[in-house]
Amino acid sequence: MTTTENTRTRGEALLRQLIADQTNAMCAKNLDGIMWDYAPGAVVFDVKPPLVLDGADALRRTWEACLPYFPANLRPEVRDLTITAGGDVAFARWLFRFTGWEMDHPAAQSWMRATAGYQKVGGRWQIVHEHVSVPYDPHTGRAVFTSEIEAKD
Amino acid sequence: MTTTENTRTRGEALLRQLIADQTNAMCAKNLDGIMWDYAPGAVVFDVKPPLVLDGADALRRTWEACLPYFPANLRPEVRDLTITAGGDVAFARWLFRFTGWEMDHPAAQSWMRATAGYQKVGGRWQIVHEHVSVPYDPHTGRAVFTSEIEAKD
Repeated sequence: MTTTENTRTRGEALLRQLIADQTNAMCAKNLDGIMWDYAPGAVVFDVKPPLVLDGADALRRTWEACLPYFPANLRPEVRDLTITAGGDVAFARWLFRFTGWEMDHPAAQSWMRATAGYQKVGGRWQIVHEHVSVPYDPHTGRAVFTSEIEAKD
Repeated sequence: MTTTENTRTRGEALLRQLIADQTNAMCAKNLDGIMWDYAPGAVVFDVKPPLVLDGADALRRTWEACLPYFPANLRPEVRDLTITAGGDVAFARWLFRFTGWEMDHPAAQSWMRATAGYQKVGGRWQIVHEHVSVPYDPHTGRAVFTSEIEAKD
């Protein structure tokens, strides 16, 4: 394995841990843990409005407002996590959902798509961009919730 | 400017051109032009279902199906394009919409959020991941269309 490959593999492992830590912080309702790895200037395209959350402070206020609605026994599921890491720039994509909601609204069971962009600053990976969404049906204007993902061919 | 900075600046310029070329290909209804820079294994989270488009062939079929509905005089608008480029991994985010639709459905005027992940393969930047969406309102389950973006503070 070359030094470059080593750097990549190490970057992927660190980012995999970063994503796992953040997901666990959501379930623990640990706001500081959720926000730990964001760059101050991170720009987030969230699953709900506004169109753009500009800066980690705006994202923190969003989390602060919604954590009280999270149930105590929330469990995360992550699928198809794929990380593409260079020396100091990386991005990742994955599917996720939370189970453990008592409400039976289809949104609560739905898989969401996540993409994150990372930059290594002062030797530490930071989230500089994040994009979370569900698709919408252009014929009805409604969000499309996916509770089960079909097995691939 | 160091060599690393030069590489970054050159990467950013190439990717800016790639995004402009692709947007112009959409307006020209040029399917090969739209698909030109995708890696064969590119995974796309599109604005409409399915949840995941797995591979450039699946994306090509989607474009093939929707290009006939594009009007002849479509004009693209791109805002806030930001590219983070390393030596051979990069990502970009931007807002975009198309004007020139005759229909007055709010979706046709809406800004969308786009994120793309790139990897340099054999000296050439390729799109390996893309994520396009509008947010949805969890209270109504409806997509939220944004025709005007407020000026920032």
